[in-house]
Amino acid sequence: MKKATIVSIGNELLSGRTVDTNAAYLAAQLLSIGIPVTGVYTVGDDIDLIVHKIRLAGDDGDIIISTGGLGPTDDDVTRQAVAKFLGVELVLRNELMNQISGYFTAHNLQMPAKNIIQAYIPAGAEAIENQCGTAPGIMARSNGTLYIAMPGVPTEMKEMFIHITPQLREFAGGQAVISKTLKCFGAGESVIAGMLGDMMQRGRNPLINCTVENGVVTLYVIASHKDSETAEQMAQTDVQFLKNKLGDIIYGHDRQTLAEVIGEKLTHLGKTVATAESCTGGLIAKLITDISGSSKYFLQGWVTYSNKAKSAQLGVPAELIEKYGAVSEQVASAMAKGARDMAGADYAIGITGIAGPTGGTEEKPTGLVYISIACDKFIKTERFVFRSDRAAVRIRAAQTALNMLRKAL
Amino acid sequence: MKKATIVSIGNELLSGRTVDTNAAYLAAQLLSIGIPVTGVYTVGDDIDLIVHKIRLAGDDGDIIISTGGLGPTDDDVTRQAVAKFLGVELVLRNELMNQISGYFTAHNLQMPAKNIIQAYIPAGAEAIENQCGTAPGIMARSNGTLYIAMPGVPTEMKEMFIHITPQLREFAGGQAVISKTLKCFGAGESVIAGMLGDMMQRGRNPLINCTVENGVVTLYVIASHKDSETAEQMAQTDVQFLKNKLGDIIYGHDRQTLAEVIGEKLTHLGKTVATAESCTGGLIAKLITDISGSSKYFLQGWVTYSNKAKSAQLGVPAELIEKYGAVSEQVASAMAKGARDMAGADYAIGITGIAGPTGGTEEKPTGLVYISIACDKFIKTERFVFRSDRAAVRIRAAQTALNMLRKAL
Repeated sequence: MKKATIVSIGNELLSGRTVDTNAAYLAAQLLSIGIPVTGVYTVGDDIDLIVHKIRLAGDDGDIIISTGGLGPTDDDVTRQAVAKFLGVELVLRNELMNQISGYFTAHNLQMPAKNIIQAYIPAGAEAIENQCGTAPGIMARSNGTLYIAMPGVPTEMKEMFIHITPQLREFAGGQAVISKTLKCFGAGESVIAGMLGDMMQRGRNPLINCTVENGVVTLYVIASHKDSETAEQMAQTDVQFLKNKLGDIIYGHDRQTLAEVIGEKLTHLGKTVATAESCTGGLIAKLITDISGSSKYFLQGWVTYSNKAKSAQLGVPAELIEKYGAVSEQVASAMAKGARDMAGADYAIGITGIAGPTGGTEEKPTGLVYISIACDKFIKTERFVFRSDRAAVRIRAAQTALNMLRKAL
Repeated sequence: MKKATIVSIGNELLSGRTVDTNAAYLAAQLLSIGIPVTGVYTVGDDIDLIVHKIRLAGDDGDIIISTGGLGPTDDDVTRQAVAKFLGVELVLRNELMNQISGYFTAHNLQMPAKNIIQAYIPAGAEAIENQCGTAPGIMARSNGTLYIAMPGVPTEMKEMFIHITPQLREFAGGQAVISKTLKCFGAGESVIAGMLGDMMQRGRNPLINCTVENGVVTLYVIASHKDSETAEQMAQTDVQFLKNKLGDIIYGHDRQTLAEVIGEKLTHLGKTVATAESCTGGLIAKLITDISGSSKYFLQGWVTYSNKAKSAQLGVPAELIEKYGAVSEQVASAMAKGARDMAGADYAIGITGIAGPTGGTEEKPTGLVYISIACDKFIKTERFVFRSDRAAVRIRAAQTALNMLRKAL
């Protein structure tokens, strides 16, 4: 199986001004055509350092793809570095000169003298057309290795990559790779790993991999086989096994969020939802309305930070707050009920807690959160203690509330 | 001058499922304390490959910082790789064991057997406390090189990095580096760069650098000098120049958010605020309540997605909505006024718009947002068109609303 290595070039990547999104894009695209990426080397705009990194990259991969450093300014030195790496001179290509000057003419602009450098390509290499800008890419072969240099501007790079994909497929030959994604909530990474046992072993085919963010565990099933139908079947078999094993911990697939899945369910059922938030301060409403089209099922949200607002807006009896405290099962339930009634919604979420870092007591510690789901059949309230900082308590509480709503639907 | 190299570890980075934001964060932070990053090596979860990349990283830098691979599952092998690189065994540390089991006890959870591995550290290395999760970091010294391994989860990594910054400063030694940070809102990166001209040139001392996130432009002034008082003066001079030049585009310093600055102003003035949101769906309330202690000045928020809710909850006349449309200057003003009256707040924000991607028309395009600030003296409403995707329109609109409130205070 052919492997690729990425070289990301640019001082802005090493000063932290720019996040390298190109590497992830290329890695995902390459994997989807059966070319795994074995490493990424990020380097500044320096000829010798770039040559050094291209050499290292050549040790790890059969295809080396660089992005960045093809602009017209003095700090763009990738084409010089590629020429040095290949041991050849840069040569002026008249057809590139015409393309570049044509680009400026088409945009009613005078071509700056500096752009002439973009018409130079290492001797013996091919130019790759740039449909969105002036910098052509470079494709060269050397000792069985395929070398490709593309611009760093994501739009130009992506357009160019799509253009060369057929050549990459041909170079890579063979192996089909099928990737499936499952999204889980309600169990940690290690609990899930424990449930799956040997399945997550490295080197297994399909490979099962996972990432975690805001309590969401994402499982990836990656199957490789020379025959694409077999790879698809292998992936499907594992996905089915995971679904049986993990049950309702799996809430969705691909890039679905909890809010998205809830949106689909509500839309499908023709039902509506409202929110009454204290500790999460609008975050649950924000997550629900992140989804385009949420206005169809999200009627209204209240952020009732003060006790007065809880009573005035949601009809939570002041006596209840006095007796049990604002952070209590009773108040969470009354908030959910109040929001459901006031908004005339089918479902409502009520949430009250102590996000911290201050405000906690021994009896009611920081991170204590009561979440309530109200619908026509029941009001269900649960108690949680999230031990983390304010931001993490809030996001975990909000996601847990969405997960409770998902299970109620 | 000491230099750093970053090793980003994780199969998810090489499959393209995760964009490596950690490297850019660390690069910017390290630069701000006078430690430039010379390269980033991205590698999968494989002991031998990690060891190889750590060796390469050691050729380029005096400080090697890795992120990722410290989780409890079988594919997390960074601690084994560090031990192998250092030529030592992993040893069980009882105090780490207690911390980790304490984390689970505090969360009322059974500690999974797999998490025991997180209590192991290479012999002779120090553990770095993890305040947001179970994986301790690792700090080791070998032949004059400082090696640090941190978790890949950005929140855990950032918290840990702040914790070790003093040790990094000390290790970097020599040159005094004074770094000042200014936060700007209301002008783009290129506009600010244009206003500053030559000041942002590379190689200048103080170095002026910038990053952009959600419309906030962060300017870093980094002065280096062997004498720390001189470095401080150099930085101060530039900061003063920037303040004069950029005026009220600068809203704060260090890690201040717009919500934080507003919170300080409201607290200082003894004033309160309420929000009435449509297109931002709770995001403004969420941003305001991100700040600990916001319950003192944030009274209440409404998320009135439907027209009915706008009228019923905020008293926006139905005729107004009918005549001008829900997305109009008039409705934004009425929402702000309604929220201020209903909550009994000194200030209120009203916001209505089309976040997209659907719902736009020629007259009212996607990204059109009206933002209104109401107080005892005036109601001021402005029209904006944010050209971006739904998530970006929402965050930009919310931040712009906070910035308008800041200017009104």
